[in-house]
Amino acid sequence: MKNEVFVGEGMKYVKEHYPELYKIIVDLNNEVYTGKVLDYKTQKLIAIAITAASGDERATKKQMSSGISELGITKEEIFDALKVVLLTSGMPSFIKAVRILNEL
Amino acid sequence: MKNEVFVGEGMKYVKEHYPELYKIIVDLNNEVYTGKVLDYKTQKLIAIAITAASGDERATKKQMSSGISELGITKEEIFDALKVVLLTSGMPSFIKAVRILNEL
Amino acid sequence: MKNEVFVGEGMKYVKEHYPELYKIIVDLNNEVYTGKVLDYKTQKLIAIAITAASGDERATKKQMSSGISELGITKEEIFDALKVVLLTSGMPSFIKAVRILNEL
Amino acid sequence: MKNEVFVGEGMKYVKEHYPELYKIIVDLNNEVYTGKVLDYKTQKLIAIAITAASGDERATKKQMSSGISELGITKEEIFDALKVVLLTSGMPSFIKAVRILNEL
Amino acid sequence: MKNEVFVGEGMKYVKEHYPELYKIIVDLNNEVYTGKVLDYKTQKLIAIAITAASGDERATKKQMSSGISELGITKEEIFDALKVVLLTSGMPSFIKAVRILNEL
Amino acid sequence: MKNEVFVGEGMKYVKEHYPELYKIIVDLNNEVYTGKVLDYKTQKLIAIAITAASGDERATKKQMSSGISELGITKEEIFDALKVVLLTSGMPSFIKAVRILNEL
Repeated sequence: MKNEVFVGEGMKYVKEHYPELYKIIVDLNNEVYTGKVLDYKTQKLIAIAITAASGDERATKKQMSSGISELGITKEEIFDALKVVLLTSGMPSFIKAVRILNEL
Repeated sequence: MKNEVFVGEGMKYVKEHYPELYKIIVDLNNEVYTGKVLDYKTQKLIAIAITAASGDERATKKQMSSGISELGITKEEIFDALKVVLLTSGMPSFIKAVRILNEL
Repeated sequence: MKNEVFVGEGMKYVKEHYPELYKIIVDLNNEVYTGKVLDYKTQKLIAIAITAASGDERATKKQMSSGISELGITKEEIFDALKVVLLTSGMPSFIKAVRILNEL
Repeated sequence: MKNEVFVGEGMKYVKEHYPELYKIIVDLNNEVYTGKVLDYKTQKLIAIAITAASGDERATKKQMSSGISELGITKEEIFDALKVVLLTSGMPSFIKAVRILNEL
Repeated sequence: MKNEVFVGEGMKYVKEHYPELYKIIVDLNNEVYTGKVLDYKTQKLIAIAITAASGDERATKKQMSSGISELGITKEEIFDALKVVLLTSGMPSFIKAVRILNEL
Repeated sequence: MKNEVFVGEGMKYVKEHYPELYKIIVDLNNEVYTGKVLDYKTQKLIAIAITAASGDERATKKQMSSGISELGITKEEIFDALKVVLLTSGMPSFIKAVRILNEL
């Protein structure tokens, strides 16, 4: 199931106070992660890499954790994704993400 | 072959004036794109998504073009990667990348 | 009407090839710009400021143009928004946005 | 009064060690937030949205807090600003800002 | 003289329509580039590197041009600064900046 | 010696699990920080400024600390670099970096 991003205080707040927006975000999330040709696992690795490249620690950890627990993505697969982050976004983003990966 | 990023005025300048740095960049590029577990195509889709998320028009176009011509990545696969960009990085980056994809 | 962002090659591509995603983006756009308490004009000024802060020239121009033509936002109102961009995001983003504003 | 951004260890350091720069920053801050046509509250909502879009947790919290305490901005107004962040900057920035809002 | 950043359509607009803000920006610019201990040339190299890292093509070109013409900074000095950009911000920003440098 | 960036959990992980990538990163780091014409101290100030501009707290602190302890860079020199960050990247990044500097 693809709703693991909805666990957390932020989305609980949206669901409670803005149920219509919440519904649309759920729809968008489902539509995004229902690739026509790419499988969910590949899309998840892309999400991990984008959040790592942006340097957002909490989002990166959340994406990695759900990728591992929900989809069986391995640490080695995540590392191969992070190598692309190193090349495209530089050392600080890469090192931060490797540290997060190491602590999982 | 994985050296398509080296075609361009920037890398030519590096190669000519800073051959030792050039050599290390080639080594880094090869090492990055030799995934232990992920294949090159998946890593390339990640690179396309990261550059699209960053809003860098020229780099995004270059990544998409080489992904299509060198690796046979389809426009539909790229679009599935861009959907993740929409969710994680918002409409302006997504729309810009879709426009680039459409013009290829 | 709030659909001016949908004019452009990118969204045409989405509409034609991914009608379901298109429909969700339309829903999201409508929901976002139907503020519970803020009016659309204030939200539009926020969108102008965010795209200016991100340095995205084309998106900034598009947001400014539609704000002026659809909502009657004045150049002086946009400038007051850009002053916040100067303080929070620095001179290059500010100057770029002022130049775009000047050329409208 | 518009000097709430100057409370904090960073500005104290500037004031003590670089009084001339401090004076200019105060002038700039006053000039920025004295909109010719936009009121301070609208400019503050723009500042909240820009810092939220940039993903800077501490700055976002500070902007929201001072907006609420100094200007009487409501959580609902902030949320309407954050909806624009969702559309222009994606889920991670949006969710982070909603979480901060929820904890205020 | 340190006012080369003020040549351009953006600042002309500010000077004409917002003379008080213009004056403060001039003051800020002068204060920033009057380092207590660092010389102007080192600060200029820092400005070149920051704009290159941000991927802003026009600003990068402007900073490089004025650094070369006003301060006699050499292309080799700029390249040594760009090497730090490569390490901290990745290949796309680096390559873009090297291309700009090459075309000067 | 120029290897202080390699102290930390992230690089330890890379060294242990990906020794070949580690070796290339060491080579790249050495090559980058062996400027043809700029000295290491100037390059380090550039690295401090870029990480401060990007808003990455941990990386900024690490760069400042190693610059002070390894190279004898003074707080006043760092502040002169941060003034450029203020002008090019805005108040939130500047203030965050000044706070970090103050706590060192």
